[in-house]
Amino acid sequence: MQVLLDERRVYLDYNATTPPAHFLSRQIPKWLSFWGNPSSVHQIGQSARSLFWSSKLHLAKFMGCEALELIATSGGSESNNMAIKGLYEKYFSQDIKRNEIIISTVEHPSVKAPVESLEKKGMKIRYVPVSFQGNLDLSVYQSVLSEKTFMVSIMYANNETGNVFPVSRLAKMAHEVGAFFHCDAVQALGKVPFNLHELGVDTASFSAHKFYALKGAGVLYCRKGLLPENLIHGGPQERRRRSGTENVLGMVCFGSVAEKGLECLESFQKLEKLRDKMESDILSSIRSARILGAEGERLKNTSCIHVPGIQGETLLMNMDLKGYSFSVGSACHSGSLNPSRVLTAMGLNEKEARSAFRVSLGLGTTQEHLDRFVSDLTDSVKRIQSFSKL
Amino acid sequence: MQVLLDERRVYLDYNATTPPAHFLSRQIPKWLSFWGNPSSVHQIGQSARSLFWSSKLHLAKFMGCEALELIATSGGSESNNMAIKGLYEKYFSQDIKRNEIIISTVEHPSVKAPVESLEKKGMKIRYVPVSFQGNLDLSVYQSVLSEKTFMVSIMYANNETGNVFPVSRLAKMAHEVGAFFHCDAVQALGKVPFNLHELGVDTASFSAHKFYALKGAGVLYCRKGLLPENLIHGGPQERRRRSGTENVLGMVCFGSVAEKGLECLESFQKLEKLRDKMESDILSSIRSARILGAEGERLKNTSCIHVPGIQGETLLMNMDLKGYSFSVGSACHSGSLNPSRVLTAMGLNEKEARSAFRVSLGLGTTQEHLDRFVSDLTDSVKRIQSFSKL
Repeated sequence: MQVLLDERRVYLDYNATTPPAHFLSRQIPKWLSFWGNPSSVHQIGQSARSLFWSSKLHLAKFMGCEALELIATSGGSESNNMAIKGLYEKYFSQDIKRNEIIISTVEHPSVKAPVESLEKKGMKIRYVPVSFQGNLDLSVYQSVLSEKTFMVSIMYANNETGNVFPVSRLAKMAHEVGAFFHCDAVQALGKVPFNLHELGVDTASFSAHKFYALKGAGVLYCRKGLLPENLIHGGPQERRRRSGTENVLGMVCFGSVAEKGLECLESFQKLEKLRDKMESDILSSIRSARILGAEGERLKNTSCIHVPGIQGETLLMNMDLKGYSFSVGSACHSGSLNPSRVLTAMGLNEKEARSAFRVSLGLGTTQEHLDRFVSDLTDSVKRIQSFSKL
Repeated sequence: MQVLLDERRVYLDYNATTPPAHFLSRQIPKWLSFWGNPSSVHQIGQSARSLFWSSKLHLAKFMGCEALELIATSGGSESNNMAIKGLYEKYFSQDIKRNEIIISTVEHPSVKAPVESLEKKGMKIRYVPVSFQGNLDLSVYQSVLSEKTFMVSIMYANNETGNVFPVSRLAKMAHEVGAFFHCDAVQALGKVPFNLHELGVDTASFSAHKFYALKGAGVLYCRKGLLPENLIHGGPQERRRRSGTENVLGMVCFGSVAEKGLECLESFQKLEKLRDKMESDILSSIRSARILGAEGERLKNTSCIHVPGIQGETLLMNMDLKGYSFSVGSACHSGSLNPSRVLTAMGLNEKEARSAFRVSLGLGTTQEHLDRFVSDLTDSVKRIQSFSKL
């Protein structure tokens, strides 16, 4: 699948956002004519409704669930908030002895912050650490799970290190103690093959713009029978679960990429070879560099690199001028000057965390991009190192 | 401003949603290339950020506020939920004697439902009725306002009848007793000239798709100094007020229509003449018809018509086959079979409410459309009436 890329730049920040699929730029002008309100009973409304609905069928097929189990949202953050706060609002009062929520120490802010908002309402947060290798500590997980656990929320794959967690097993363990299991799967879509029903999670979040579609659209998977309280109350859209006129264009783009989902997955697998060669090239040309989280299971496109003594931010700006885009810190708010919370959770100190940067490949990445990148990166690192010696 | 319309159909449901401005179909493919994550510090991110930011400048100029007072959301429903629940979560605990919320009886579900969700948490709802003429009962409003009032939420203009309420005066009265004033202004944008600072409301909701832009985008105006609790917690987007990667394309389209806002407003004023002629034509050709809410101040594009003995739904389907789109019941969920809550609140009984339909004009409406509409409507009404006599 071709993507919309500016040939003058090398984009290596696919975990932050992806360029839209190239075919969308041809299709969108056509889809714009389906501007009716899907809730209107007349033809203009109903044609928008059926386009909207077809997007869910494509997504459901690719994700391994039923279309009715998908609730359209404005994106991953809304989906995470809806699952976490919605399950609490709806089900906490049924068994108030279950007052603990378990999350990993490397969750995305859109999981961490809503969980913290429940802490103010009396819930206790239990954290599961990750090792320096990027693995989740399963013995701690086992030990914090109990009949007090209301819910577990653990991500499928980490945006910064690419580390992948054993979601199916984690969900099963949560269910054994009667807890809900929510999965922030934003980084997994199109990268890891999965089937939601086999995975056995209760709810899962997805975002369109991390999957070659548009910003402002996403879905929350919510297994049949589960009814989290609405985050957005109002009209009866999404079978009364999420009010507000449906983002038809956003969802159609999302669904149409999902229709090509297997092709995406296949292309994605090929990135591993590119990524591994890039890492080995970097390790040979920059002797002090090391790859973070490489011992754990990782997304095939992600590389979190630490070069001691280098300010990640300085390197990023230097390389940005040369036409390369990658990131330091979290994918989603790289503007932040704080050291990466994910990396400090893995055991790096603040200084070390500031010396790391994240390279994430995607469907537009080529060997030639990476060869130029490694060469220019090596130059930049050397220049910065020689400056700091002065 | 030209809009994207299918020439084969006559669209008269602009309060439900508007066709996108025609220039958007030319611009969108260009704007698609600004797909970076606005939170990324590299050039690809920053170019998306500045396009996103420019949309707020256009919106703020048109709305009469500062760009920093606008929070980008996924639409009107999210904005209403964020204002109502966010002000409650943040400020209620500061003065728990203020435990009453005042709304009108004709609010949109995305105001009514979040207010009702607070009722479950102990807030009391006080309702202000509207008269059969469509006017808000100001003496009731005055009498329910007190030092117990936490917040007032009253819409600018009603989606079904088009009735416009005296927001500036209502806000001033709310502030005199120390209450917050939220305004659902979704139906006012591009229809009524206003300046948010002069209006004096604390918060106000807007939706892009009711204003010739795309579904899935909107803003919440939040006056400087006010900090409602987030509805969506997570990353630091929107100065930490609304987490989630920004819907750049949605906002850019919204802002670019706002840039032509004065032109929209001017074109909109001309609809009054078309609407008034249509109403007088309908009243002459369908003798039993009457216009609802016509004595009150109304949006110049909206006509809520009651024809005794006619099922609005039957008429709508009949006319849909002839190529006309309009609605019965609320603009936003016309799929519902319940009689309009707005019309029953105005004093119609259920049967009467089911015999009403709503015609709303917009920038693509012509005299020729309306002449054909009135003629075909008259035929349909006569046919339905003769059938029901049998």
